[in-house]
Order: sequence, then structure tokens, then C-alpha cells
Amino acid sequence: MPTLAPEGTLATQPIGDLVTEAGATITDATIAYQRWGEFRGEPDGNNNVLVIEHALTGDTDVADWWGPLIGPGLALDTDRWCVISTNVIGGCQGSTGPSSPHPDGRPWGSRFPAISIRDQVTAEKLLLDALGLTRVHAILGGSMGGARVLEWSLMYPEQLASACVIAVSARASAWQIGIQSAQISAIERDPAWHGGDYHGTGQAPTAGLAAARRIAHLTYRGEQEIDERFGTTPQTGENPLGRYRDPNQRFAVESYLDHQGRKLVERFDAGSYVVLTDSLNRHDIGRGRGGLNKALASITVPTMIVGVDTDILYPYHQQEHLSRNIGTLLGIAKLVSPIGHDAFLAEFRQMDRILRRFLDLSQTTSDEDAGDYMI
Amino acid sequence: MPTLAPEGTLATQPIGDLVTEAGATITDATIAYQRWGEFRGEPDGNNNVLVIEHALTGDTDVADWWGPLIGPGLALDTDRWCVISTNVIGGCQGSTGPSSPHPDGRPWGSRFPAISIRDQVTAEKLLLDALGLTRVHAILGGSMGGARVLEWSLMYPEQLASACVIAVSARASAWQIGIQSAQISAIERDPAWHGGDYHGTGQAPTAGLAAARRIAHLTYRGEQEIDERFGTTPQTGENPLGRYRDPNQRFAVESYLDHQGRKLVERFDAGSYVVLTDSLNRHDIGRGRGGLNKALASITVPTMIVGVDTDILYPYHQQEHLSRNIGTLLGIAKLVSPIGHDAFLAEFRQMDRILRRFLDLSQTTSDEDAGDYMI
Repeated sequence: MPTLAPEGTLATQPIGDLVTEAGATITDATIAYQRWGEFRGEPDGNNNVLVIEHALTGDTDVADWWGPLIGPGLALDTDRWCVISTNVIGGCQGSTGPSSPHPDGRPWGSRFPAISIRDQVTAEKLLLDALGLTRVHAILGGSMGGARVLEWSLMYPEQLASACVIAVSARASAWQIGIQSAQISAIERDPAWHGGDYHGTGQAPTAGLAAARRIAHLTYRGEQEIDERFGTTPQTGENPLGRYRDPNQRFAVESYLDHQGRKLVERFDAGSYVVLTDSLNRHDIGRGRGGLNKALASITVPTMIVGVDTDILYPYHQQEHLSRNIGTLLGIAKLVSPIGHDAFLAEFRQMDRILRRFLDLSQTTSDEDAGDYMI
Repeated sequence: MPTLAPEGTLATQPIGDLVTEAGATITDATIAYQRWGEFRGEPDGNNNVLVIEHALTGDTDVADWWGPLIGPGLALDTDRWCVISTNVIGGCQGSTGPSSPHPDGRPWGSRFPAISIRDQVTAEKLLLDALGLTRVHAILGGSMGGARVLEWSLMYPEQLASACVIAVSARASAWQIGIQSAQISAIERDPAWHGGDYHGTGQAPTAGLAAARRIAHLTYRGEQEIDERFGTTPQTGENPLGRYRDPNQRFAVESYLDHQGRKLVERFDAGSYVVLTDSLNRHDIGRGRGGLNKALASITVPTMIVGVDTDILYPYHQQEHLSRNIGTLLGIAKLVSPIGHDAFLAEFRQMDRILRRFLDLSQTTSDEDAGDYMI
């Protein structure tokens, strides 16, 4: 039986050395995870494990960011399923990343190598191995989490019975690389960045990180939703229409974006932001596999695709592309929402139906091979 | 008869002091313009003048940026029409802006006030007055130029017989304000900005301006067009998939955006970029006029609206909004293009048909009042 952390608590698991796709080594890496619900089934066969993959600056606390979707009786029913959520390698919420201590005791900083989505999956595979799990019922995730799900299906197809891929594409688009690189550049141009070695200097590139987040947030939200909320309203007590431009006299939307930037600075490391954003630039399931469509056609894991009609970061045509070419498609679902990309983190009623449908379909499919085993 | 500059040459015209909408004064302002084709008609009545309004970093050289559309026999037929193009106040291509000398001899720099789209139109009205023109056949423009056309129709309806408004909205959307403020912030965070008073320091916020342009360019171009051109291709001779992130190892799209940034730095002043981008944030034809739709309904100038199906900066629903509410609509035309916002500067075959159609419709309408005058 797998040895799992107590329900709901953040646990860390050493996974040893991780050699990246590009050939660098992260020595003595650790992956953080959380678990809800009791494990049932066989650790190397049919069981009730659902692995949830968070997005770029997300964390393992699914009960926080998908609160209405996880718990007894909810779509991710913890009376029925054993939900495991992992913190990504390169992050800053328990797993080894640029702000973590290197084996020499100082922070990794610029010595932390570039990682790809595949490296993130390699780290998670080492985690599940360390936990004694060599197969799970499903892996689910959105955005960068969805990219990891796709790579899981291609790298270790025998280790998951089904997959749910939300609001992502088969590879980074040039537009995504462009806007993501603009965010990385905002951090790298901050004088407090110090080439990535600001940890321990008493400085941090907070202005650059906040600027990156302001840009990113505009790709996470639909323009009509933001406009309905803020329009051209000035921030209370400020006058953005004065005689001279003044950065302290803002429209309400500027204040909102500043707030988003500040919130991220409080909870997230700039080095992790650069490493993980760079990993999104490197996302390409076709690399070394004969191209995107050949890679998609080779997928044998039954997969559900989910997209958002107003997503400008991962436009819906990218999910249609996935659904057209994926080898074993369970179905495609569209979130209809003015919210844009973030809809998968906000439209809980629709997500509830989609996740329930996915789990139903995934059981129908896996039951065909499952013999007597029923969850 | 109006006194106009020799055909094709850049001329400057003093317009005196300009008092801005917010109450600041630009003393001894100058507006630059170019002219093609001979003037015919009455300077205060029916005549053959078309005024062309350039976009944010555009200039008066319509023969350059709309080359296939202006000239003898072309849509803007200079055998028939007298085309006048003005450089916007606040700019850096002949008109007074932050890099221009203040009457005290030093650059305006941070002393240059904030301007609105209305201030840009006020300056152009003073220019036309100075040239001896109190009425023109039509005013046309795209993006920030289109915003000026809308304000012309509302501020001085008696001075134009028709209007063509391309790829713009009735006011800035919150999303536009957000992404435009991100660009301004990139410049203001550049240590070489010096609060706007870098002129004469031997420094310029070139890194910030290039960063702003990289962001802006991604709003000017459709994501599918950029992706078709660049995808995830590495820049020749560079490896963006190496062991460590390196800003000098880029994807092709990064190199392309760097190139766009460099090109702008060579030809454009950062202070002008801030002032004009801020003016786009202030764009709101409803201000002081009882709101957007009341303002639009009050328009009496026959107006053609043009949009682009893939524009993410000024999405087509914004042009549909204009067309639904404008008082005197000549028609709405949609550019169908993967290029996005910039399509009005690139899809010349479609623009040719649209401009010809606009000029036909504008003459039909104005001929009703024109009596015997025919162009």
C-alpha cells in the first residue's frame, strides 16, 4: 500500500536527483504534495487516485482554488476518490525551486536549471514512485497543469487510466511565447534581479514580478468581463484625467492590476516565475515525437479536453486541435464564460458538470479492462 | 484659397497656444503635415480635401504606410482629392511633443502636459484654421487616428462632410487601459526615464520603450498569424531549449519582437510614446456628453465604420457597437484577415475596396446638399 501524507496537510517527499530534458541536474530534489480521501485499490493497478496538476502560480491546495469541486459529495468526491495534488518542480510552495537551498546551503538562484514541462512530469513520476504508486485512475489539470497531463499521457501512458486536459494547447504558440517572454523580461530588467541571484541580497525584483503579473492577468481574463467590471472608471480618490500624467492617478483597472501584482509578489518567488514561465515557452508535445499531430495520434490514454470560449491565452481552436488529433478522445467540453482563461478556476457550476462527466466516462472506459474492480 | 505646403513635403505650421481639455497650456505649438493633390472647391464649403489621421506611432507620410492606397488612380486618388495628413500633437515627427524645445529652449520633457484625443483634434482644428480651411470633404483614420475622427465628428461637425472610422472603439476598454498602462509602466520603470526628463541627459529609456513595443505588437497582430509565421521555431543560431535560461538564446518570435522594439526605438521618442498612449487611455467620446450612446446618437456626420475580424486590441464587437449607435451611419465593413488590428495597414486589396466604397457613399450623401458642385 502507498504511504501517503495525512489528509489535507502539505507533505514533502525527497525524489533524489532529477536530470532535466536539456541535461542539467537538480540534486536532491523534493516535491511537495497534498492528499484528500482514502486510497483504495491496487497501487500498481486499478485504484481510486486522481492526481491534480496546478497552473503556473498555483499550489497543492486544491481545496482552496477548486473549493466547490473537491470534498465529500462534490465532483471530486473525497469519500470516493483519493485526490493527490503535487507542487511543480521549480516552484516555491514546497517543491525544489530557485529559492530553495542548494545542497551547498545557499539558494539555487541562477544555478537552478531551465526546466521543461517534461521535467515537471519526470519529477512527479519520481514522486509517485516514491509514494509506491505506479498507476492512477486519472490525472487532471488546467493551463500549465493541463500541459503536464498531456506529457504524462505521452511519457508514462501505462501509469494513468485517463486524463483530463483543461485550457491548454499541444505546444506553446508564438503569441504565448511572445507575451510570456515579455513577462520574463520585465523581471530580468528589474535592477533587483541580480541575474537571478537576488535571494539573500535583501532585495527582490518585486516591481518586475508585479509588472509581469499585470501583463499575465490581462491574458487570463476576457476583455469583456474586465470592461464590464471597470470600464473607464477612475480609481476612487484618484484622477487619471489630470493635467499631467501621474502614475499615482489611476483608472480602476490599473489599481485592480496593481493589486493582482502585489498579491503575487507576497506569495510567489520571482525566480520560480521565470523558471516556470520559461517552461511554458518550451511546451511542445511534438518535440522529438515526429510533430504535434503524430504525438497526439499516439496517445492511448482516454482523454477529455476542456476549453473556454473566451480564452485569449489558449484560444478554443487550440483545444479543438487537440480533440481532432488525440488518439483516444473521451470528449470535448466548452466552458461558456466572459471570464476567459481563468474560467476553469471560476465557473464552478460548469466545471462541476464537466468533472462529473469526465469521471463517469473515465470509469466506463477503464471498467472495460478492470474486470471485477469497481471504485 | 488655402495656402498649402508643396506636394509631398513635410511642412510645419505654428498654431499658437493650445489649452488642453484638463486645463494645461502648450505654448507656441506647431503641427506638421503633408499634402498630396491639388485643392479644389471652396475652403469653407464643398471641396476635395481628405484629412488622414495616423495611428499611435504613425506619421504624416501616408504615401509610405498606405502606399498602395494613395496616388493617381488609387483609392485615395490624388488626381481627384487633396489629401492632407497631420502629425499628432504630442508626437515626435514634426509636431510639438515632449522632445520638442519648450519656449525656454530646453526640451518640454515632463513639463509636456497630458493630452486627450480631444486635444489632438483641437490642435488639428487650429492647423486647418491656420491653413484657411474651415471645412473638408472627409476625415479618415485608423486606431488612434480613428479615435480622432470620432472626436472631430462630435467637436466640429460642421467642419467635415463625412468620416471613416477604422479599428477603434467609442472609448478605451478596461483591457486596453490595462495593457497600455503596462507599456507606459515599462518605460517609467526604466532607470533612464528620469521622470520624463531624459532628453539632454545623453540617456534614453530605450529598453523600456522596446519592452513597451514588444507588448504592443502582440496586441496589433493576430495570434494565428504570428503562430503561422514563427511557431516554436528557434531563432537561427540560438537555442532557447538549453540547460539554463539565457535571454540571448531566443525563439524566433522573440527575435522578431526584439526587432520591432529596436525599430521603434530608432524612430520614436519614449516621451511621445507615453503621452500618446496615455491619450488612448483617456479616449472616451461619452465624457461630458451624457455617455457613449448618447454621444454616438448625436453624431450628424455621415460615417463609415471599419473593423477587423481578428483584432484583439479593438475587437470587432466594438465597431459593431459604434455602428449600432451612431446617428448617421454610411455603413460598416469588416476586414477578414489573420493579421489582427494591423490589417488596416496591411490588407491593401480589401482596404482599397472599402475606401473607394466610402468615398462613393460620402459623395452620394454630400451631393444631396452640394447643388452643382461636383468633385
